[in-house]
Amino acid sequence: MIKITLPDGSVKEFEINSTPMDVAKSISEGLARSVISASFNNEKVETVTPLTTDGNLVLYTWREDEGKEAFWHSTSHILAQALEELYPGVKLTIGPAIQNGFYYDVDLGDQVISDKDFPNIEKKMLEIARGKFDYKMRSVSKDEALAFYKEQGNEYKVELIENLEDGTISFCDHSTFTDLCRGGHIPNTSIVKAVKLLSVAGAYWRGDENNKQLTRVYGISFPKQKELTEYLAMLEEAKKRDHRKLGKELELFTFSQKVGQGLPLWLPKGAALRERLEQFLKTAQKKAGYEQVVSPHIGQKELYVTSGHYAKYGEDSFQPIKTPNEGEEFLLKPMNCPHHCEIYNSRPWSYRELPKRYAEFGTVYRYEQSGELHGLTRVRGFTQDDAHIFCTPEQLDQEFKNVIDLSLYVLNSLGFENYTAQVSLRDPDNPDKYIGSDENWELAENAIINAAKEKGLNYVIETGEAAFYGPKLDFMVKDALGRNWQLGTIQVDYNLPERFDLSYKGSDNELHRPVMIHRAPFGSMERFVALLLEHTGGNFPLWLMPEQAIILSISEKYEKYAEKVLNLLENHEIRALVDNRNETIGKKIRESEMKKFPYMIIVGESEAANNTISVRKHGEGDIGTITVDEFAAMVKEEISKTLKQF
Amino acid sequence: MIKITLPDGSVKEFEINSTPMDVAKSISEGLARSVISASFNNEKVETVTPLTTDGNLVLYTWREDEGKEAFWHSTSHILAQALEELYPGVKLTIGPAIQNGFYYDVDLGDQVISDKDFPNIEKKMLEIARGKFDYKMRSVSKDEALAFYKEQGNEYKVELIENLEDGTISFCDHSTFTDLCRGGHIPNTSIVKAVKLLSVAGAYWRGDENNKQLTRVYGISFPKQKELTEYLAMLEEAKKRDHRKLGKELELFTFSQKVGQGLPLWLPKGAALRERLEQFLKTAQKKAGYEQVVSPHIGQKELYVTSGHYAKYGEDSFQPIKTPNEGEEFLLKPMNCPHHCEIYNSRPWSYRELPKRYAEFGTVYRYEQSGELHGLTRVRGFTQDDAHIFCTPEQLDQEFKNVIDLSLYVLNSLGFENYTAQVSLRDPDNPDKYIGSDENWELAENAIINAAKEKGLNYVIETGEAAFYGPKLDFMVKDALGRNWQLGTIQVDYNLPERFDLSYKGSDNELHRPVMIHRAPFGSMERFVALLLEHTGGNFPLWLMPEQAIILSISEKYEKYAEKVLNLLENHEIRALVDNRNETIGKKIRESEMKKFPYMIIVGESEAANNTISVRKHGEGDIGTITVDEFAAMVKEEISKTLKQF
Repeated sequence: MIKITLPDGSVKEFEINSTPMDVAKSISEGLARSVISASFNNEKVETVTPLTTDGNLVLYTWREDEGKEAFWHSTSHILAQALEELYPGVKLTIGPAIQNGFYYDVDLGDQVISDKDFPNIEKKMLEIARGKFDYKMRSVSKDEALAFYKEQGNEYKVELIENLEDGTISFCDHSTFTDLCRGGHIPNTSIVKAVKLLSVAGAYWRGDENNKQLTRVYGISFPKQKELTEYLAMLEEAKKRDHRKLGKELELFTFSQKVGQGLPLWLPKGAALRERLEQFLKTAQKKAGYEQVVSPHIGQKELYVTSGHYAKYGEDSFQPIKTPNEGEEFLLKPMNCPHHCEIYNSRPWSYRELPKRYAEFGTVYRYEQSGELHGLTRVRGFTQDDAHIFCTPEQLDQEFKNVIDLSLYVLNSLGFENYTAQVSLRDPDNPDKYIGSDENWELAENAIINAAKEKGLNYVIETGEAAFYGPKLDFMVKDALGRNWQLGTIQVDYNLPERFDLSYKGSDNELHRPVMIHRAPFGSMERFVALLLEHTGGNFPLWLMPEQAIILSISEKYEKYAEKVLNLLENHEIRALVDNRNETIGKKIRESEMKKFPYMIIVGESEAANNTISVRKHGEGDIGTITVDEFAAMVKEEISKTLKQF
Repeated sequence: MIKITLPDGSVKEFEINSTPMDVAKSISEGLARSVISASFNNEKVETVTPLTTDGNLVLYTWREDEGKEAFWHSTSHILAQALEELYPGVKLTIGPAIQNGFYYDVDLGDQVISDKDFPNIEKKMLEIARGKFDYKMRSVSKDEALAFYKEQGNEYKVELIENLEDGTISFCDHSTFTDLCRGGHIPNTSIVKAVKLLSVAGAYWRGDENNKQLTRVYGISFPKQKELTEYLAMLEEAKKRDHRKLGKELELFTFSQKVGQGLPLWLPKGAALRERLEQFLKTAQKKAGYEQVVSPHIGQKELYVTSGHYAKYGEDSFQPIKTPNEGEEFLLKPMNCPHHCEIYNSRPWSYRELPKRYAEFGTVYRYEQSGELHGLTRVRGFTQDDAHIFCTPEQLDQEFKNVIDLSLYVLNSLGFENYTAQVSLRDPDNPDKYIGSDENWELAENAIINAAKEKGLNYVIETGEAAFYGPKLDFMVKDALGRNWQLGTIQVDYNLPERFDLSYKGSDNELHRPVMIHRAPFGSMERFVALLLEHTGGNFPLWLMPEQAIILSISEKYEKYAEKVLNLLENHEIRALVDNRNETIGKKIRESEMKKFPYMIIVGESEAANNTISVRKHGEGDIGTITVDEFAAMVKEEISKTLKQF
């Protein structure tokens, strides 16, 4: 008999050689039906792998990332089999699961695959899947494995096998198909109910451009057709909402080859949007007792040696800035914290004066390879809505709660309703990995967990995921397309106060070390605006919209009245513009509807005569003829629904 | 006879060998009494130099910088004579006039001068001055000059003479004293009526630390005792108002050796002050049709090669930032203009869409030698209130006027009432020095002059002072201590539009080059705040004050009421703080008076009972018991007097 420990801590005895599927069955038939993958003692296993020792078992379904990985990896075998059948002589290389789906790199010889061939391949894949073939792993000797692929004339697999250490070579069989494989499969092919090939591209063998170029076929698969349909709709929508596309259309930002890749230039509308977001957070932060500071974008190299950032960012990042004076070298700042530590250090503090909360919209620079750059989400210069709280250990609990309040206020004001929290704690088995006393760690970890509980957060605990210098809490925010974004990290830090020798005088008249909290509810202005664009598709909350209304004159005769209305709206701090073009009102309305102006204001003879405006709301249509004051009150009322006082 | 042309263009005939003094006498006895220096054909001459050819003559009095220079240079001769008499064996080296006064570097051998000796030296100097000795220049041969100083054993003057070219060696005699000298003196010593030695310091011969260290004696002199008294009082006041001292006292900014010299860290009160200034200008700029943009603090080296800034700032500045990718190098931006040109270039423009006015509070970095750094006035990183206007040549006139309006609005809102304008035009004799067509230059120069006239500016024209790329206008602002600061340059630029190949489509459907205007009413936030601190001594205009009021509770019993008043003031957007310390109200009032809070609000039993506050105004005393609303209205009223709408 062996003892199997399940994630909930329960321990059950099973006969030796029982499989994960046996364990699932012993729990419930329902679970057995949905289990598609498993891990045993933190190693991937098949659902049919015989278990021979005591150990920890985790069962995965499609809902877990690990289940999806096994699902997509298994589908790549099906793709490979389909390609072998449809493209005789094809040589398989590697075919992993990726974040969304899988790919397979193949050498097609003289043959070519284009997206026109996808339906045919997909059909063949589904045919195979319906065969309900089990995935069966078997160990093979190196000689046997080499012989198998040499016979096929597949030099790629031969090379892979040559580079593997002896004794761990395994094949996976299903149907008539065999592949070199480390394992991690779903029980059988029939679980794959829907398949879609997404694209085909060139890829060099082993990623080296001196090697032969292979054909990479990307695909995705699902256990239900409905899920595929939804996924494809989401892809379509994501393409429409791509922040790079919307950023251009809405004239928010641009890039210049001359200025440099990954260095956004914010155009007027984008800069104004950013300013509104900054002022929104500044106002809340002021109420929360933060103080704004301003620090330079460079610092002496020595500063970052002290902070440890030079060791971390040094070699792969922007190199030090030399000066005509040999002794003096500077670095572009990769982080604002060292500067804020020096501001804290500019005078002595008493415990009575803490916490100090220094906030700065601080632009930092980090070098990324040009291939990694992506619109505003992966850039080389970005502005963090950074703040550092310096407090006593006793204040940590309250401060953490306050920061959660602020983070939730930000998420709610911006229309994010779907989020969970991840609490990263230290690994209790490796206490030496961490700096700071046990006592302080316990204090901080309890503070975070208590705060998460008290604020009613839906949270998960990730043991061993803490940084070496302190525990943290991250928000995982789901956007309108169901994608997850990590936002608003709150990080406790025992390291920098040590490195910068920060202190305060306690009630005992002795010097003590403060604790530091790093936090950034937006993360960075660049990434947040990108996320907001993709989440809202450009339909920002009304308070944030670049233009809240467009005024359409029915004909030239009402141009002046349109301008007058514009002025009145400006006095009410409503952002609007006028369309006085000599076009029919129908055309103007259609175009404005397409451009998603939240409100259209139509002015003609009767409006000008009665000092009124006719208002249409985007997506809702006509809402009647009212005065500008009434309209302003309506806008104010609507804004107050999403933008509450902190 | 020779023809003498005077600055007003008038030409008069004089007998050959007439002197500048003769010319002055021919104009008026009054002028003759006040003339102390002159230049002939742009070369410095003595008032007694015989003129032998036709030419342009300028006569200088004490009021002109050139007059002061002659005055102080002449006084350095008197200092040298006094030192020779009081310190036998002293060896003279050089003794020039400087911006405020003069110095003389001497080798005292074993003797020492300290500020205790100043009264004695000053006494001797005044004795000499009263002798009314004429300054008399004479040419000497090199041999004669060398013989004179070799006999004295003065190796310094010998070295100076050795290095002079033959034929231009001259001595100046007065009384029994002789000095090697190029000329530029006042008529005689008696014009110097007041003398003050200011400091004594070490200085290496020829500024080379491998040479012998000499003694440098600094002094200043005036034609009237009253002027010296005023100058010393001003020095005393300037010391009190030194922005570095006030910045520390008011907790506005700090520096950190670790972050680096010349890189200010703005503390919360300073950052808030800066933010108020920025918002003030942003609001005005918005009304004036500017659009804010945001650009990164670095750009590819190539960008600055295109702009020409690399050639200008390259070698002496922060060196290029290398990256792990060899081809990619970046520079810290020394100017915002290249980035704004690239923003303009991000799409095509029609003449109908111009002018575009891009504004940014853009932080730029320029390397200065550490010896040149000075508080916030000379730093290595500073934030310009920059903007660039791209317009058609026809729009230049109106745009220039608009910029002058904005600059005057800024100066007036911040309490600067004393300013003149300097218009820098090209040198008509050197047309090849300048880029851009004659036609455009004429247009731009006329636009500036017309704008200056139309806006009623008190302006002077400086011919030949324009940059090679366009004419400009500077404001020269006199601060409360009578010192001049150059502020708010408005610069026309034909160069960058050319270098960045900027264009717009004209009404003729052809592409044209726009004109660019650079302007920054504050100049930089750092320098402007320094100037404001020294101008106001920290008594900023009320709208700008970090704390507009302090609430003093008469005793502990009224702490709560004090906090309530604070809340009410915050609702009125009045910045205040509470002094609830357990001290007598008398002491609290005295301390608050010293700290220059504009308003003191005293709360005790009767105030708490009646929901009122007792208000004292800084420098004016008690102004009675009123309600918070009444006080808020009063503050609003006072602010509206200096801070008008743009």
